[in-house]
Amino acid sequence: MAKEAAGKLEWRTNVPDETSKKLEPDYGLVGKTWLRLKCVMGGLVMKVWGFLEKVWNLGVAEPRKVIHCARVGLALSIVSLFYYIRPLYDDFGGNVMWAVMTVVVVFEYTVGATLSKCINRATGTILAGALGVGIHWVADRSGDKLKPIVLGVSVFFFASAATFSRFIPSVKARFDYGAMIFILTFSLVSVSAYRMVELFELAQDRLSTVAIGASLCILVTMLFCPIWAGCELHRLIHQNMEKLVDSLDGCVAHYFKDSGNLTISEEDLNKKIQGYKCVLNSKATEESMCNFARWEPTHGRFNFGHPWKQYLKIGASLRRCAYCIETLNSCVGSDIEAPPCIRKHLSDKCLKVSSYSTNVLKELAITIMKMKKSSRIEFRVAEMNFAVQELRDALKSLPSHLLAPPSSTGEESTEAKSVPIKKADVLPPIMKVLPLITVVSLLEEIAARIGGVADAVEELASLAEFKPAKDRKPKQNLPTNKIISDNLNRQTI
Amino acid sequence: MAKEAAGKLEWRTNVPDETSKKLEPDYGLVGKTWLRLKCVMGGLVMKVWGFLEKVWNLGVAEPRKVIHCARVGLALSIVSLFYYIRPLYDDFGGNVMWAVMTVVVVFEYTVGATLSKCINRATGTILAGALGVGIHWVADRSGDKLKPIVLGVSVFFFASAATFSRFIPSVKARFDYGAMIFILTFSLVSVSAYRMVELFELAQDRLSTVAIGASLCILVTMLFCPIWAGCELHRLIHQNMEKLVDSLDGCVAHYFKDSGNLTISEEDLNKKIQGYKCVLNSKATEESMCNFARWEPTHGRFNFGHPWKQYLKIGASLRRCAYCIETLNSCVGSDIEAPPCIRKHLSDKCLKVSSYSTNVLKELAITIMKMKKSSRIEFRVAEMNFAVQELRDALKSLPSHLLAPPSSTGEESTEAKSVPIKKADVLPPIMKVLPLITVVSLLEEIAARIGGVADAVEELASLAEFKPAKDRKPKQNLPTNKIISDNLNRQTI
Repeated sequence: MAKEAAGKLEWRTNVPDETSKKLEPDYGLVGKTWLRLKCVMGGLVMKVWGFLEKVWNLGVAEPRKVIHCARVGLALSIVSLFYYIRPLYDDFGGNVMWAVMTVVVVFEYTVGATLSKCINRATGTILAGALGVGIHWVADRSGDKLKPIVLGVSVFFFASAATFSRFIPSVKARFDYGAMIFILTFSLVSVSAYRMVELFELAQDRLSTVAIGASLCILVTMLFCPIWAGCELHRLIHQNMEKLVDSLDGCVAHYFKDSGNLTISEEDLNKKIQGYKCVLNSKATEESMCNFARWEPTHGRFNFGHPWKQYLKIGASLRRCAYCIETLNSCVGSDIEAPPCIRKHLSDKCLKVSSYSTNVLKELAITIMKMKKSSRIEFRVAEMNFAVQELRDALKSLPSHLLAPPSSTGEESTEAKSVPIKKADVLPPIMKVLPLITVVSLLEEIAARIGGVADAVEELASLAEFKPAKDRKPKQNLPTNKIISDNLNRQTI
Repeated sequence: MAKEAAGKLEWRTNVPDETSKKLEPDYGLVGKTWLRLKCVMGGLVMKVWGFLEKVWNLGVAEPRKVIHCARVGLALSIVSLFYYIRPLYDDFGGNVMWAVMTVVVVFEYTVGATLSKCINRATGTILAGALGVGIHWVADRSGDKLKPIVLGVSVFFFASAATFSRFIPSVKARFDYGAMIFILTFSLVSVSAYRMVELFELAQDRLSTVAIGASLCILVTMLFCPIWAGCELHRLIHQNMEKLVDSLDGCVAHYFKDSGNLTISEEDLNKKIQGYKCVLNSKATEESMCNFARWEPTHGRFNFGHPWKQYLKIGASLRRCAYCIETLNSCVGSDIEAPPCIRKHLSDKCLKVSSYSTNVLKELAITIMKMKKSSRIEFRVAEMNFAVQELRDALKSLPSHLLAPPSSTGEESTEAKSVPIKKADVLPPIMKVLPLITVVSLLEEIAARIGGVADAVEELASLAEFKPAKDRKPKQNLPTNKIISDNLNRQTI
């Protein structure tokens, strides 16, 4: 009975095991390995899937990068045609390799970069080729024994000199690739010349294939959805301005959030505030874009000789704002809170300064985007300066608040009640208002630096001869003027 | 008479002309051209001379760059030997070209960069070669008509995909060159395969010459005065710390210069202050150095697997200090001056905070340089924090000064006399102390950020298992302890 029961129980409990046992023998060790492999493969597939998802998102976010990839594929496929089509192959033969190599090495994301590489490559090749042939001529006349020594020494000397030139900042910025190609071609020519007699023929074939590759690159990069370095730089500066607007707005709104001025969620706000970080590190990108843009011909709204260097100045002034916003951002996170009465007294003025400062940046961003001289920028800057002056005025009236206990100021009584008096006793007023005063001071500094951005943009507008913009909404000018005249009146009173 | 007079006058005024006329006929047009040419040549020579002087200074300032150039020349001359020596030439023939090309393209300033390029090149070449042969095998089996289509489509697809991979940040940081070589090799192999039967032989020859070039580069770069990316990164971080020390010291000394604490000239001071600017823009260099350092084998005091990424964190924390110092620097230039009594009251404390802050940075710089755990860093940080606390205490005692007229504070009477009372009336005290309070606030923030640097360095010390340093001057510990205990006493009182 017990055994039967046990057997039943066993049978019952083992049902799944037995069925699995029934299945296992069919596979044995292979089956187990297969299962494990499936697990590993599953994990791998998941990882690859995750990676592909990331890549897909990158592609969706920046479709022009996908277009660039297609262009590279297209250029290489066209070059391959030289191989597949017999008459062309008969003409160029093995040298088509050089066309393929040129396309791979020279084809860059922006038109300017491609042009810069093409011109560098051509100049470097021609200079080095001519020099190589000259050295070869000298070496030929110096006897069989001296010939390898002359060639070797010349390779050593010119390669070293060209390598050193790549360390000189002005050369590095524009002709780095050319110097490398110079070294390459010179070494190849002087070394090949030692054995080959048909140097000129070789050079001609190679140059023609390189020219084919380079001109193909230039054609494809300029005809199929061209991406201009100049446009990219222009857009980068515009985006950086908008990021600073978001950051500054966000920082100040975050600091005065309990004043009821906050309309968006904490998460969105944090995201907005982080915008300045992109601006902090955009120097390298701006410089390379500017270098490439200077090689580009007239395109869109930009003429050849557009004052691209001025964009670097604007970028530098934007970065100076970003440094200040970075410091402001850490002040904003301070633990010590100013007494609500003082906070209330200054918050409106601070918010005004920040909103007028961002108005200036917004106007500058519009000037950059539309490439039209703004008629309102002077008003905006004046507004900002008046807001700063108002903030200073508000600060001037502070000392009485500072020492007086919060409850004594009649009109702030509601806020004053919420402050425990003991806490106010522990920290003397000056310590309590320290972060607030720092915020005020930084806001003033930011406004001054935004003034610097405005100057740089104005200089760009006059250098690039921007035309005056038509007034978009003339009605909006009225309140601006009103505020300024109000402010002026207050000043004179 | 009139004519005679005119003639005389003419004769008189023309004297110098006639003498020059006498000289001119000797040279004629050729002479003039020669003189002009001499002028132009003189100007050109002067310009070239100026440029060469600059280049010479660059070489003298950084002799390792000159050494690098000599190394490139050496490597290329050695590769050229393969051409000049007949038995070697007979073995490799025209493929030596690939060795030359490899040396030119792969040889970089630091060992890590060269290794990274070699490994990238090898991996890219092998992967693309294998894939190319595979595609070739498939194309061969798809009939003569389909073959060019299969090859063309595969070139388009793989080239586009590899180009896109270069946009993925993680790939771009470490495998950008590998991806380019992949595209190059794949295109060359699949295109060459269409015509050439001896694909394997070709691939073998090419790979062996590339291997010769690459191993030559690695040998030369590691044996002749190697420049390690790791050492460079290490030194860069150390230098940046010292620059911040100079800037912070300089800024604060400049602000309180009339307090009689200034010992160096204005020009030297300005030069010192500008140091932080290098730190602001060092991110890109640090990142590339870190990427290269990770490829490097054990060298000097650095093991393979040294926590190079931690250096990026230290770099980021140093940059955060630099942002704050940038803001401080512009506050320091403010026009409004605080009343001397308040200035005097705070200047000692501010100078103390700045000097203790720089002491921390100096100690961290020594830790980094010697790669030994400092036994005094905790004391230094504590000192700095106490100095900050003292500054706060000094600030707490300010409000009475703020409202009271300067002459009422007995002990400051000598300074107070020098202040015209009218000026004090024009600007309310809060406005007058605004820049000073901002400086105080920024100094506090900088001290906090230097604390962040200390944490990052401590993390590095524990990750890289730095050994404890022997106490250099144990006697110096006494005053430190004394100050801290003094401070502690003051706190408890």
